[in-house]
Amino acid sequence: MDTIQSDGYQIFFEDSLTQLVNFIKEGKYSRSFVLTDENTAVHCLPLLQQYLAEADNFDIIEINAGEESKNLDFCIGVWKMLIDFGADRKALMINLGGGVVTDLGGFVASTYKRGIDFVQVPTTLLSQVDASVGGKTGVDLDSIKNIIGTFTQPKAVFMVADFFKTLPERQILSGLAEMLKHGLICDAAYWDKLKTSDLSLPAIELVHRSVEIKNEVVIEDPHEKGIRKALNFGHTVGHAVETYSMLNDSNPLTHGEAIAVGMVCEAWLSNKKVCLPDEQLAEIAEVFGKLYPKHSIADDCYPALFQLMQNDKKNQNGQINCTLLTSIGQYSIDNICTEQELCDSLRYYTTL
Amino acid sequence: MDTIQSDGYQIFFEDSLTQLVNFIKEGKYSRSFVLTDENTAVHCLPLLQQYLAEADNFDIIEINAGEESKNLDFCIGVWKMLIDFGADRKALMINLGGGVVTDLGGFVASTYKRGIDFVQVPTTLLSQVDASVGGKTGVDLDSIKNIIGTFTQPKAVFMVADFFKTLPERQILSGLAEMLKHGLICDAAYWDKLKTSDLSLPAIELVHRSVEIKNEVVIEDPHEKGIRKALNFGHTVGHAVETYSMLNDSNPLTHGEAIAVGMVCEAWLSNKKVCLPDEQLAEIAEVFGKLYPKHSIADDCYPALFQLMQNDKKNQNGQINCTLLTSIGQYSIDNICTEQELCDSLRYYTTL
Ligand SMILES: NC(=O)c1ccc[n+]([C@@H]2O[C@H](COP(=O)([O-])OP(=O)(O)OC[C@H]3O[C@@H](n4cnc5c(N)ncnc54)[C@H](O)[C@@H]3O)[C@@H](O)[C@H]2O)c1
Ligand SMILES: NC(=O)c1ccc[n+]([C@@H]2O[C@H](COP(=O)([O-])OP(=O)(O)OC[C@H]3O[C@@H](n4cnc5c(N)ncnc54)[C@H](O)[C@@H]3O)[C@@H](O)[C@H]2O)c1
Ligand SMILES: [Zn+2]
Ligand SMILES: [Zn+2]
Repeated sequence: MDTIQSDGYQIFFEDSLTQLVNFIKEGKYSRSFVLTDENTAVHCLPLLQQYLAEADNFDIIEINAGEESKNLDFCIGVWKMLIDFGADRKALMINLGGGVVTDLGGFVASTYKRGIDFVQVPTTLLSQVDASVGGKTGVDLDSIKNIIGTFTQPKAVFMVADFFKTLPERQILSGLAEMLKHGLICDAAYWDKLKTSDLSLPAIELVHRSVEIKNEVVIEDPHEKGIRKALNFGHTVGHAVETYSMLNDSNPLTHGEAIAVGMVCEAWLSNKKVCLPDEQLAEIAEVFGKLYPKHSIADDCYPALFQLMQNDKKNQNGQINCTLLTSIGQYSIDNICTEQELCDSLRYYTTL
Repeated sequence: MDTIQSDGYQIFFEDSLTQLVNFIKEGKYSRSFVLTDENTAVHCLPLLQQYLAEADNFDIIEINAGEESKNLDFCIGVWKMLIDFGADRKALMINLGGGVVTDLGGFVASTYKRGIDFVQVPTTLLSQVDASVGGKTGVDLDSIKNIIGTFTQPKAVFMVADFFKTLPERQILSGLAEMLKHGLICDAAYWDKLKTSDLSLPAIELVHRSVEIKNEVVIEDPHEKGIRKALNFGHTVGHAVETYSMLNDSNPLTHGEAIAVGMVCEAWLSNKKVCLPDEQLAEIAEVFGKLYPKHSIADDCYPALFQLMQNDKKNQNGQINCTLLTSIGQYSIDNICTEQELCDSLRYYTTL
C-alpha cells in the first residue's frame, strides 16, 4: 500500500508507528507531547508508548473524551500545559485520538508560539478516513461546531488499523458512512467493493482508498471554494438531522448515522433532479437500510429541520444548495432544492 | 510616496482612508466589522466613519484599551460578537487601533471560521512602524506575551498620520525607538535624518522609510529563522528591562523606552565585541540620552535582569545571543554575550 502524498505531508498506512519513530528522530524536535483523551489513553497510548520509548523524551497531555471537550477551555488547558512543560518552537505535538483530539490538537499546535509542528495519529475510523486529510483544525464555541480554527496541515499522518479493535460498533458505522460517501461521489467500483466487504472491522486497504479520494478532492480545492463541495453529499439533510437529534434525543445519532439518513434523502433528490437512475436509488437505500438502524422522523419536525438547513453555513441567501449524484460515482454540485423537495426526500426515507 | 508591496498585500500611505473605501467596495464583502478600543473609538473612529458611511454596512466592536485586554477572554468576546452579528466567511475585520487591537484583531480574524479577511488601520506610531508589517498576530496567556497566535498576513494596511495628533508623547517616543533602530541596523542616512528631524509628530515620510526597512527584512525571512534577527537589536537587554519594569515599577516603561535603554547597552556591546567605532557609540548614547528620560537601574537588579534574558524565547541552551552593530547602518547577528559583558553594558548605561 502506497504512502499517500498530500499537501506537503505524507500519510502512512504500513508500519505506521515505526514510521512515526523515524519521523521524530529525523525532525530533531526539542521534545514531543502526546495529546490523548480518556479513552485513547487506555486503548491506544500503550501501543504508542512501546514505540516512542526508543525515540525520545515525551510528555502526555490528556483531555476528557467527547465533543463536549472540543472547546476553548480545553485549548487553554493544553496551552498552559505546554507552557508549564517549557515547550519551545521546536516542540512536536502528536495527536492520538478521534476527530476531537486531532481537531483540537491541531488548532492548539497551529497557534502555540504562532505554530509548532504536529502529526496526527487518528484512532477512530471517522478520523482516519475524514478528519485526517484536508488541514482543517478547530474547536466549537457556544455549541457552534468548528467555528474557531485554522487551515493548517499536519507534518504527517500515521494510520493504525489495530486501533479499530477497541472501537464501539457505532463508531465504526460512523466512519463507514463517510467511506460509502466516497464511493458514491467518486468511485463506483469502490462502492461495489464496500457493499460486499466485511465492514465490522474495515481493512486498511479500504481506509487507504477513502483517504486517496478525499485527498484528491481537497488538494484541488484546499479552501473549500468549489469542488470540495463534492464531500457535502448527504450533509445538507444529514447535518440538520444530526443537530436536531443532538437537541432532542436522549441518545443522539452519531455523525455517520445522521449522514446515512442524509445520503438516502439526497439520493432521492438526485433521482428527482439530476437523473440518478431508479435502480441506483433503490440500491443506495437498500445498502444503508441494511447497515444502519432506521431513524424515525415525525412529520412535524420537518419545519425545524428545514430551518436548520437554512442556517447551515454552507448556504447563502436562504437558498439551499445540495451536492447530488447523477449516477453512483458521479457528483453534481450547487443544486438548489426547495423546501417542498427537501421535505419530500425526508418523507421518502420515512416510508422505506 | 509609493505604496509598499509586502507579502501579498499593499501598505498605503497616501489618501489611505479613500483607499480603504475602494478596497472594501472591490472586495465584495458581506459586511465589515470595525474593532476599536476605548481610546481609538473616541479619537480615530469618527474620522473612519466619515469615510465608511459611503462604503458599506458595518458594525463596531470595542475592547478595553491596553495590554491587559490582549488575552483570550477578549478574543472570545469578539468571536461571540461576530457570531451574534452573523458574520460569515465573506466578512471583513477592520482593526483600528494600536498594536493591541491589530494583534488581537488579526488573531481573531485568522481563526474565525478558519480565517476571514482583515485589514489593519494602525493608530499608534509603534503599530504603524512595527506591528503593521510581518504577519504576526497574537495574544498573551498567563502574562506570557504573544504566546498564542498565528502568522497571517492582512489583506492591506492603511497608514494615517493624522491619528498621531491625539497620541500621548510617551506613545510617540515608544514608536520612535523602533524607527531609530531601523536606521541603526540598516540605513545610516535614515538615522542621520531622524537625528535632525522634529520628532514630536513624525512625518509620514519617515514612517514610510521605517516600514520599507522592516518590510524588506521580514519578506526575506517570514518565519524568523535568520536575518529577521536584525530587528532584535536592542531587544535582548531591552525586553529584560521592560519585563523587570513591568513587574516592579508603579509606572512601568513603555516598550520603546525599554528598548532605547537596550540599544544603548547593545551599542556598548557592539563597541566591545564587533568594533562599532567609539565615536558612533558616543553618538548613539547622545541621541537616546536627549530623547528619552534616564531610567535608573540599581546594581542589585543585574542578576534578575540576566535571568530574564536567559528565559527569553529567542535564546537557546542558556546562551544569550545578541544582534549587534558593526557600524551605524550595519548589523551582525548571533553574537553570544556573557553575563559579565551584559552586566557591564548595563553599568555603562547607568554611568552615562
Ligand atoms: N478536520 C476534519 O476535516 C474533520 C472531518 C470529520 C470530522 N471531524 C471532527 O471529528 C469529530 C468526530 O470524530 P470522532 O468520531 O473520531 O470523535 P471522537 O474523537 O469524539 O471519538 C469518538 C469516541 O471514540 C473514542 N475513541 C477514540 N479512539 C478509540 C479507540 N481506538 N478505541 C476506543 N475508543 C476510542 C473517543 O474517546 C470518543 O469517545 C467531530 O468533532 C468532527 O467535527 C473533523
Ligand atoms: N505584530 C507585531 O509584529 C508587533 C510589533 C510590535 C508590537 N506589537 C504589539 O503591539 C502592542 C503595543 O502597541 P501599541 O503601543 O500601539 O499599544 P496599544 O494598542 O496598547 O496603544 C497604546 C495606547 O494608545 C492608545 N491609542 C491608540 N491609538 C491612539 C490615538 N490615535 N490617539 C490616542 N490614543 C491612542 C491605545 O488605546 C492605548 O491606550 C504590544 O502588545 C506588542 O506586543 C506587535
Ligand atoms: Zn461528514
Ligand atoms: Zn520592539
